[in-house]
Amino acid sequence: MTLNVGVIGVGMIGQDHIRRITHVVSGARISAVTDVDFDRAKAVAADLPAAKALQTGQELIDDPEVDAIVVASWGPTHEEYVLASIAAGKQVFCEKPLATTREACERILDAEVATGKRHVMVGFMRRYDEAYRAMKATITSGDIGAPLMFHSGHRNPNVPPHYTSDMIINDTCVHDVDVARFLLDDEIVSARVLTPRKNSLASDHLTDPVLFIFEMAGGALVDVEASINIQYAYDIRGEVVGESGTVELAETNKVVVKKGGQWGGRVAEDWRERFIRAYDTEFQEWIVAASKGESTGPSSWDGYAATVVCAAGLQAMESGERVEVSLREQPDLYKVTAQGPTGTD
Amino acid sequence: MTLNVGVIGVGMIGQDHIRRITHVVSGARISAVTDVDFDRAKAVAADLPAAKALQTGQELIDDPEVDAIVVASWGPTHEEYVLASIAAGKQVFCEKPLATTREACERILDAEVATGKRHVMVGFMRRYDEAYRAMKATITSGDIGAPLMFHSGHRNPNVPPHYTSDMIINDTCVHDVDVARFLLDDEIVSARVLTPRKNSLASDHLTDPVLFIFEMAGGALVDVEASINIQYAYDIRGEVVGESGTVELAETNKVVVKKGGQWGGRVAEDWRERFIRAYDTEFQEWIVAASKGESTGPSSWDGYAATVVCAAGLQAMESGERVEVSLREQPDLYKVTAQGPTGTD
Amino acid sequence: MTLNVGVIGVGMIGQDHIRRITHVVSGARISAVTDVDFDRAKAVAADLPAAKALQTGQELIDDPEVDAIVVASWGPTHEEYVLASIAAGKQVFCEKPLATTREACERILDAEVATGKRHVMVGFMRRYDEAYRAMKATITSGDIGAPLMFHSGHRNPNVPPHYTSDMIINDTCVHDVDVARFLLDDEIVSARVLTPRKNSLASDHLTDPVLFIFEMAGGALVDVEASINIQYAYDIRGEVVGESGTVELAETNKVVVKKGGQWGGRVAEDWRERFIRAYDTEFQEWIVAASKGESTGPSSWDGYAATVVCAAGLQAMESGERVEVSLREQPDLYKVTAQGPTGTD
Amino acid sequence: MTLNVGVIGVGMIGQDHIRRITHVVSGARISAVTDVDFDRAKAVAADLPAAKALQTGQELIDDPEVDAIVVASWGPTHEEYVLASIAAGKQVFCEKPLATTREACERILDAEVATGKRHVMVGFMRRYDEAYRAMKATITSGDIGAPLMFHSGHRNPNVPPHYTSDMIINDTCVHDVDVARFLLDDEIVSARVLTPRKNSLASDHLTDPVLFIFEMAGGALVDVEASINIQYAYDIRGEVVGESGTVELAETNKVVVKKGGQWGGRVAEDWRERFIRAYDTEFQEWIVAASKGESTGPSSWDGYAATVVCAAGLQAMESGERVEVSLREQPDLYKVTAQGPTGTD
Repeated sequence: MTLNVGVIGVGMIGQDHIRRITHVVSGARISAVTDVDFDRAKAVAADLPAAKALQTGQELIDDPEVDAIVVASWGPTHEEYVLASIAAGKQVFCEKPLATTREACERILDAEVATGKRHVMVGFMRRYDEAYRAMKATITSGDIGAPLMFHSGHRNPNVPPHYTSDMIINDTCVHDVDVARFLLDDEIVSARVLTPRKNSLASDHLTDPVLFIFEMAGGALVDVEASINIQYAYDIRGEVVGESGTVELAETNKVVVKKGGQWGGRVAEDWRERFIRAYDTEFQEWIVAASKGESTGPSSWDGYAATVVCAAGLQAMESGERVEVSLREQPDLYKVTAQGPTGTD
Repeated sequence: MTLNVGVIGVGMIGQDHIRRITHVVSGARISAVTDVDFDRAKAVAADLPAAKALQTGQELIDDPEVDAIVVASWGPTHEEYVLASIAAGKQVFCEKPLATTREACERILDAEVATGKRHVMVGFMRRYDEAYRAMKATITSGDIGAPLMFHSGHRNPNVPPHYTSDMIINDTCVHDVDVARFLLDDEIVSARVLTPRKNSLASDHLTDPVLFIFEMAGGALVDVEASINIQYAYDIRGEVVGESGTVELAETNKVVVKKGGQWGGRVAEDWRERFIRAYDTEFQEWIVAASKGESTGPSSWDGYAATVVCAAGLQAMESGERVEVSLREQPDLYKVTAQGPTGTD
Repeated sequence: MTLNVGVIGVGMIGQDHIRRITHVVSGARISAVTDVDFDRAKAVAADLPAAKALQTGQELIDDPEVDAIVVASWGPTHEEYVLASIAAGKQVFCEKPLATTREACERILDAEVATGKRHVMVGFMRRYDEAYRAMKATITSGDIGAPLMFHSGHRNPNVPPHYTSDMIINDTCVHDVDVARFLLDDEIVSARVLTPRKNSLASDHLTDPVLFIFEMAGGALVDVEASINIQYAYDIRGEVVGESGTVELAETNKVVVKKGGQWGGRVAEDWRERFIRAYDTEFQEWIVAASKGESTGPSSWDGYAATVVCAAGLQAMESGERVEVSLREQPDLYKVTAQGPTGTD
Repeated sequence: MTLNVGVIGVGMIGQDHIRRITHVVSGARISAVTDVDFDRAKAVAADLPAAKALQTGQELIDDPEVDAIVVASWGPTHEEYVLASIAAGKQVFCEKPLATTREACERILDAEVATGKRHVMVGFMRRYDEAYRAMKATITSGDIGAPLMFHSGHRNPNVPPHYTSDMIINDTCVHDVDVARFLLDDEIVSARVLTPRKNSLASDHLTDPVLFIFEMAGGALVDVEASINIQYAYDIRGEVVGESGTVELAETNKVVVKKGGQWGGRVAEDWRERFIRAYDTEFQEWIVAASKGESTGPSSWDGYAATVVCAAGLQAMESGERVEVSLREQPDLYKVTAQGPTGTD
């Protein structure tokens, strides 16, 4: 009844998923862990009731006591572990990115399509956020008419020292890329990046903020403001403009305080606070599906599209020009008909 | 075409009305002023283009260059000037209270009824506030069903040194008394005052806060929280609970600011900021009516009811018991059939 | 590692807790169920992976495969099962009420105190609601000064046919009683109930709405508006008024929609939607504590206080008078020093 | 004491300003009117206490009983009347546009500069809106850090049949152009227009919506969403993103209503409702200044800049390319040092 999960990569994000599977969600336990730092893997395993530390990802994937795999290692290693999981016929949850290049993603698509069924879920957790789900439900209901524009705002109070300007596209805006595809149920066909004057509170080497603009195949227009040193909070904004109405994310504060001439509420401190429930829901839904040998949620196709769009975004940021995005033809495996957060639906 | 207005009492509130009539609203000018301090009257007149200073209120009321009168003097003098204005057949705007005792108010009612037409408007400016008007319109529309309760909150950041505990009823809650009658279109039949632990930031001699509860003739229940040293702002709250919905006053901030982990807006600093537009509208509507020799807005009856209810409230605050309120039979003159803020409508 | 839970009473609420323990929270499973309708118990057990149906509550409590007990049966049976659980030395989660009379509650207090440690948690789930927790944190922070008043609003769209007027106190306002004690960290010393005109949409036999007013030992004043046929939604309001500021529950909508001349958001449909996460958190925290043989959260003392206050409330509703509330001296076992939702803290 | 105002053009907007000057604001009256339809001018004059109808604008401007002029005629006639007013040494309020071409605006600048003082105020009423003023005050206070981006939203429920696609720039976005210059206290240096899929509810010949993007001289980036058939309401959105915080326009509803599962408030029906107070304040401030023979508010320079930017916007909409904007050197007359809504300050 209980799903045995092996985790590849037990850094901060991997350990957080281990905590979630162990103490928060229902139906799974950690049976094995591995890490590039084997001592760290052993230390993490020692704190868990039923987990062993293994030397390599391949060993973990092949272990008969591992039913399903979580890939939370360094991005460039994702392709290898996802391909190995598919080859082993096991369900795999892969943190974003699915892989770091278009070609690597396409190898995963080829491998998965060859098996005739989905094996991969990509960690785009915003699709599990209640607010984005309510947004999508509002759009689908027809209450605001057909969507024409999506204004997205992605604001970080600050970024760590190792953050580089390409990360504003690949690590920050990648979430807006995915959520735009999710909300508008459509593919992105072009990218453009405008850059205002730099925030003087950002490190010298950073481009911050940016306005990342993309067009959807159906003609809707998306603008993403990414501000990565905005100090005040971690603030995720979003508004979809329809033909006859709009829907936007509400503020997330639980109480309103009045003092000192002001009324107001909190804004989230960081992405953990803002999206912690989305991560919980994401894993609960993955465990339920994986326990039945099925996939759910964002697919390899979604991971592929995000990687391709971000590459175009980087090119657009460098050139200042509009860059076209082209995807291969979508395999039937990823054409979703049912409702729910599966695929781009 | 221009209404010549004489002002009795040129203290802070009187001077504010002079400023309003001179510089803000249309259709009137100050033609005469008087004050218990004649030097002050002269000084005020000297700054006005067309005003003379007169020695007494009676002289001002009788002056042929005075078409209509504003009474902004000390409360105990109101009866005399209002009666004299009625006797002179002139329209009079009287700041609250209409008069300080039930008996004085009844003398005014008798005098006005004897003339067969309204001459008096009482300065309950909340009836001219856009938010209260929208509340009343919502109730009248039937959108929330018949009103059953009204929760009112009246919060002052602090009060001046001369403020005494009876003023929390007579000067503070009197506005809630009037607005409850206005919103619910009904008379108050009983009063009760509950007192929680005293706010330690209030002066020793004050009762603060209080919960002033009254029942309406039709059975609706009203609770008024009056907090007069709440520091944070001047905050007027109100919610009417109907059989199938509610309507409440919105916050009044014009912009939302996000900084330092918070989002929010201003609350008004004092009653001037909160109700300045209501005062402007009140005077504009009075000038239009008075120019035609007519009255509008809160009547002598409304001033009478407020004085009687506040007397009951004071008695209830002292005794801790429920006190019944009884009004004389309402003269036809004050039975309103038309729409608008006239009478209790 | 996994806590084996036995459930007494598998009606609607019992089955919901079984679903929660089985599919939502971590660390427990259902090992036994019983019900006054044994066929129903068997049917429920049949759908669970590891549960047996037992004939009686006593049999379930004594079963060695039951580590901890959930009491979700009819209120009058609670005393028996809670006492038996204490006697068996097992942790018990008891849905409210702890017991239906003061005397029954006192027998539980006596039995629990005799063991020298807590065994009982009472199901006042609002203490686990994020918004109420944020309210309490705000009060504790000192940001709004010492609390003086608590305005609570408890609104049901409608009530089932079997609902009787005493339930507005015992089943509806009981939550406000507990949450007032929780937020203000104080005991209730008197109760009073005022009743406006009846909502014409309520059944003839119901008193609806009511204003339930109580005083705290420290002098704070609480007013609870309970409206049980208000149609529009299930709406829980709350505002604590401090000496220098206020804190109130925010709206709970996730998105704001603009259409047809309006902007706005949803209000919850029913208590399940509003408090589902609070129930989840409540059980997760109980499972963690019970797995260590400890209690957490609302205690027998809290259950006792709620029962006594509600009895006074009913008496006050009938008499229209103020009714004093007196509790026995609080045993040391329930005097809380640590932070957290334990006891009345 | 009273300013005698002559009005050129008594169509809908002209008549509204006549109503405002006559019945709302203080200190002015209409002494003369003229219109291309002389019968209309006579009819309007007949309803006013002190106004005569004149045959031509020139005659009105020259009339000794006209102290100051309001130009509310057809846009292409503005240049002639503004130049004549300057030549007559009289203050003139000119509805936007100041003039329809760059060259015409420059002729006005030349004429006004030659007189050595300002004579012209242009009707950009948003600068008098309380919300925009609060926004500007927030920016100026430094609370949100230096401004980097301005997201503006300009939404009309629908447009009249004669509306053409160039009007989305010249008549709709012109206000956002001016308010961006006002808020950011800077000039626009480039324009770009992106067009998503057309709103199917718009007439076939319209481009709707558009995303009008411009860069400021200091590097701030502005994006204006203009949606002119969005059905739900007239909704003006705006958010300035600073280096450490943001400020945005609040909703304008006065009350919050809860019914039918929703809570919410009104959005304005049209521009009259949204900006009626701004128009009142604009005229009151103009009358005060003009009575002293002085100018205030948006200047000829602001009118010139708006016309030049809109011309670039139209070119950008046609070409799909970025278009540079260049203004002549700013005359000292328009270099503002004092605070207030004068010039671009």
